[in-house]
Amino acid sequence: MLVDAEQIANWESRYRAAFVNSLTGYKSANLVGTRDLEGRENLAIMSSAVHLGSHPPLIMLIVRPDESPRHTLENILASEVYTLNHVTPAIVPAAHQTAARYPRDVSEFSACGLTPGYQPGFAAPYVREAAVSMGLYLREHRELSINGTHMVIGEVVWAALPDAALREDGSLALEATQTVALSGLDTYHTTQTLKRMAYAKPDKPPSEVEG
Amino acid sequence: MLVDAEQIANWESRYRAAFVNSLTGYKSANLVGTRDLEGRENLAIMSSAVHLGSHPPLIMLIVRPDESPRHTLENILASEVYTLNHVTPAIVPAAHQTAARYPRDVSEFSACGLTPGYQPGFAAPYVREAAVSMGLYLREHRELSINGTHMVIGEVVWAALPDAALREDGSLALEATQTVALSGLDTYHTTQTLKRMAYAKPDKPPSEVEG
Repeated sequence: MLVDAEQIANWESRYRAAFVNSLTGYKSANLVGTRDLEGRENLAIMSSAVHLGSHPPLIMLIVRPDESPRHTLENILASEVYTLNHVTPAIVPAAHQTAARYPRDVSEFSACGLTPGYQPGFAAPYVREAAVSMGLYLREHRELSINGTHMVIGEVVWAALPDAALREDGSLALEATQTVALSGLDTYHTTQTLKRMAYAKPDKPPSEVEG
Repeated sequence: MLVDAEQIANWESRYRAAFVNSLTGYKSANLVGTRDLEGRENLAIMSSAVHLGSHPPLIMLIVRPDESPRHTLENILASEVYTLNHVTPAIVPAAHQTAARYPRDVSEFSACGLTPGYQPGFAAPYVREAAVSMGLYLREHRELSINGTHMVIGEVVWAALPDAALREDGSLALEATQTVALSGLDTYHTTQTLKRMAYAKPDKPPSEVEG
């Protein structure tokens, strides 16, 4: 089937949101850990983390100000530090529940049954149940005038991961870290590696990485 | 294991790129179809598509100017239209091969064995082998001063998908569209649905969507 812009614009808003959120394909599922200046912890699931660069290691988040991560955005802007934590199958229900609109004085860690941890000298909490966590310093923030979303760019200053998940080339085996993928607004997926492809060159046919 | 910013900065560049590209978790795998003003077609795989908003339906791409999608960026800026096409298992080798640095006058469609198609009145080619394709108008472009990457925001003006993949709530069943996920720079994954979670509310425990 073929749908056009007018049809999409005329759909009921939740139906349209479910549709458009599915269009990009699979998304990352990260819990964003923050703390306000009074030390109150906050945790919110986000699917918008995207790689911006490796040197320095930069990750962009897109945050909608009108949804539950608004405490997260305020905390990031105030404290300038936050964590990203990969969602695993065991914590999918708790991770999804962090999207509920809890009052500011409720920690999603305790409300949803997750455990905050701290790296020495780093003020934002990570999620102890996650196999992969990282700490970021805020590097840039901008409101996008096109639709009022916020672009938050952070630099990774530490990363914690299982030794066994780090492959010889520096990549992480995301099945070994039990990282899940998200689609649309509510669907969590496990994965299997289909193929690892060798670096593409114009004069060589595509080939898989050995081993 | 715990790695810090200094260790990451001191790694060899390809090792660091593989590591940092793995940190966000799973990424989308989309082929971006464009045409220059002389009608020459171009196709490039990108993993940076992110949902920016549903009304209007906006998708952001992050494009590195120094890599093979540079023809893609030039074509998007010149023609102001492009397509996104979900990668499926059957076309993973061809899709990955579009990352090779082909000269401008070589179409990645023909070099990699993919078939361009056109929707009436829309100037950019889609990929006939993809089950899900969409056409976008360029809405905003900005170079990010933090590292010279380019933010490209487009509005979805049509989407083509298999009828059977559209669920009652408007979301797409991405296993039904055979959409694959990407991790790092080179690893393609198939998925299984683990859970669909109901809309999260503070006064209700997390629950799965029925059926």
